[in-house]
Amino acid sequence: MRLTVNKNQLLKTLTIAGHAVPSKALVPILSNVKLEFTEKGLEITGSNSKISIKSIVPNMVDGKDILHGSGYGAILIDARVLTEAVREIDGETICLDVIDDCIAKIDDGKSTFRINCLKAEEYPDIDLEIAGPSFEIATEELIDLVEQSAFAASTKDQRPILTALNIDADGTNLTATATDSARLARKTIPMAVASPFRCNAPARTLSEIVKLFEGEKTVVVSVEESKITLKAGYTIVSSRLVAGDYPVTKAIIPQMFNYHLEINAQELLSAMRRVSILSGEKEPVVKLTMSEDEVEVSSKSDLNGSANERIATFQFSGEPLEISFNSLFVADAIKALKAEDVTICFQAEMKPFVVKNPKDDSVVELITPMRTY
Amino acid sequence: MRLTVNKNQLLKTLTIAGHAVPSKALVPILSNVKLEFTEKGLEITGSNSKISIKSIVPNMVDGKDILHGSGYGAILIDARVLTEAVREIDGETICLDVIDDCIAKIDDGKSTFRINCLKAEEYPDIDLEIAGPSFEIATEELIDLVEQSAFAASTKDQRPILTALNIDADGTNLTATATDSARLARKTIPMAVASPFRCNAPARTLSEIVKLFEGEKTVVVSVEESKITLKAGYTIVSSRLVAGDYPVTKAIIPQMFNYHLEINAQELLSAMRRVSILSGEKEPVVKLTMSEDEVEVSSKSDLNGSANERIATFQFSGEPLEISFNSLFVADAIKALKAEDVTICFQAEMKPFVVKNPKDDSVVELITPMRTY
Repeated sequence: MRLTVNKNQLLKTLTIAGHAVPSKALVPILSNVKLEFTEKGLEITGSNSKISIKSIVPNMVDGKDILHGSGYGAILIDARVLTEAVREIDGETICLDVIDDCIAKIDDGKSTFRINCLKAEEYPDIDLEIAGPSFEIATEELIDLVEQSAFAASTKDQRPILTALNIDADGTNLTATATDSARLARKTIPMAVASPFRCNAPARTLSEIVKLFEGEKTVVVSVEESKITLKAGYTIVSSRLVAGDYPVTKAIIPQMFNYHLEINAQELLSAMRRVSILSGEKEPVVKLTMSEDEVEVSSKSDLNGSANERIATFQFSGEPLEISFNSLFVADAIKALKAEDVTICFQAEMKPFVVKNPKDDSVVELITPMRTY
Repeated sequence: MRLTVNKNQLLKTLTIAGHAVPSKALVPILSNVKLEFTEKGLEITGSNSKISIKSIVPNMVDGKDILHGSGYGAILIDARVLTEAVREIDGETICLDVIDDCIAKIDDGKSTFRINCLKAEEYPDIDLEIAGPSFEIATEELIDLVEQSAFAASTKDQRPILTALNIDADGTNLTATATDSARLARKTIPMAVASPFRCNAPARTLSEIVKLFEGEKTVVVSVEESKITLKAGYTIVSSRLVAGDYPVTKAIIPQMFNYHLEINAQELLSAMRRVSILSGEKEPVVKLTMSEDEVEVSSKSDLNGSANERIATFQFSGEPLEISFNSLFVADAIKALKAEDVTICFQAEMKPFVVKNPKDDSVVELITPMRTY
């Protein structure tokens, strides 16, 4: 195995595959990437046993040769060492020469690295092919679907199923739902799928994965019994699904509201940020005091004092209302909506409320208020 | 105590005084800053009992009123809360109103903060006046003096005296020396001082302090028995000295060398950075192999492999020589010299060597090599 490859392409591909390599590998072999030189190009695979990523340096890009060599073969190299060496190398072109299956010599004519490596056979078998039914989705749509919902998933492992993003394809719509039981986010887009399915994908992992496909037009998604696979361009990613039954959330979202607040997203965000300075808490509680004449954002801390701020422009309909909540939940919801103005619909002081984009009803963000004394 | 003050000036002054406020205060009262409204302006003091900083928002800056009010007095406010509140406030002008000595109301007409505060009497007495003999030094010279030497001090508390920067004013020269016993850095500048002195100032603290004076033309320095005080513009800083006798280092620096290497600073730095990628160590060992025809930088790790690189342009005089060292020590020394080319002078393989700027002999950096097997 002896090849010459464009430095930047190699670094890009290594970085993509490296996203799956754990920073501290419990299984030591997984701190390596697998390099496989085939007729397709240089295939690089990384895995933490939950997600696996394979990305390929092709032989040509934009009609330009970027890879050539001789002696097809495969080898394992420490991902951190290889990535840093390639990143720091000055030259545009890198020669990679595998000697006796145990040393990878990397050279740009100026610096020479002799990196210890391992036989490819020691790497676990990773099945990255798409076998089950699949559908194609525009990358931007996929990224929005995940970004506008997955943040609401739980980050705690107490109830593993709540760390998942529930994806439901009923044939005509694709609905992504995440909840940590104190809040819920749901995004629905029209999507014709030949074989309807439901699955629970790890929310945080999926948020990272979809970003790898930025720049690609579409992504092919396939869901099998225990894994979800995404493929676009030269990259294929597979992630284990979360086991268990997702809670039924359909009936949770209220439809009737007694109070409506329309407000500028940035103004509410910065007022909440300011008044929660005094809280010193990780999850600062903020109170909204609303009437048709005045909307006030306030916060109180026994230790530090209190803060309040009036909102200059708003529209409120309903009787005067006071409601307290975790301001980070409301901030996350507002940011996910990506809207200039947001509408907040309340049922009553202690009932969940909904944050929406008045111009786009594909996303619903539900938040449970907090009791303050 | 009721005053109106320019937001940016208040934030700047708070930030300066805040440098002395510990992030986790062992003595709870020290998590506060002391605000003192006097005829001089608004004096803000922070302290961690080792360093204390007082900085003043004056009544006028560049002929513009930036502070006015009524009711001179003093109060203690939590430094983090006050600084964040002032930073996040939108308005240009802030009203500060102290109510019953227990609440500071801060208001820009839009946001209102009511911050709990404490009586000024509870703050420790801090003597920040310059009492002893003093001298004046250009700020740039002071910053260079500290930056080019203090980095070599120890960061470990095993021998507290080695965490100090030794400052020696013999009347005509000012010499700053730091050593962690494996390396030494010394900077000497001409400086006429009426009363010669020697002191051991905490090196890391001093490095942070001198940066606070950037933008000021000169700094007045005063050394008393147990503290060093620096004053410029509206800021005065005092730091405790390190107790103990500084080791005698005068005779340590060799004067006769058998080998001289002149080399481009950036080229050596980047070659060392590249070859030490494989080491994975916090203190990577790098080897220089030198002859009049060739200079090679290399590194070796049992775990990961080896790397080497030839230097393109250099001048070496002497017999062929191999020498290994902690590459971070050499990198620190080279960076401190701020020179395009550096000269490294060796005595022998296992003897300390000197890194110098060929155009400036005010700085000497001495490094002990390492044995490799």
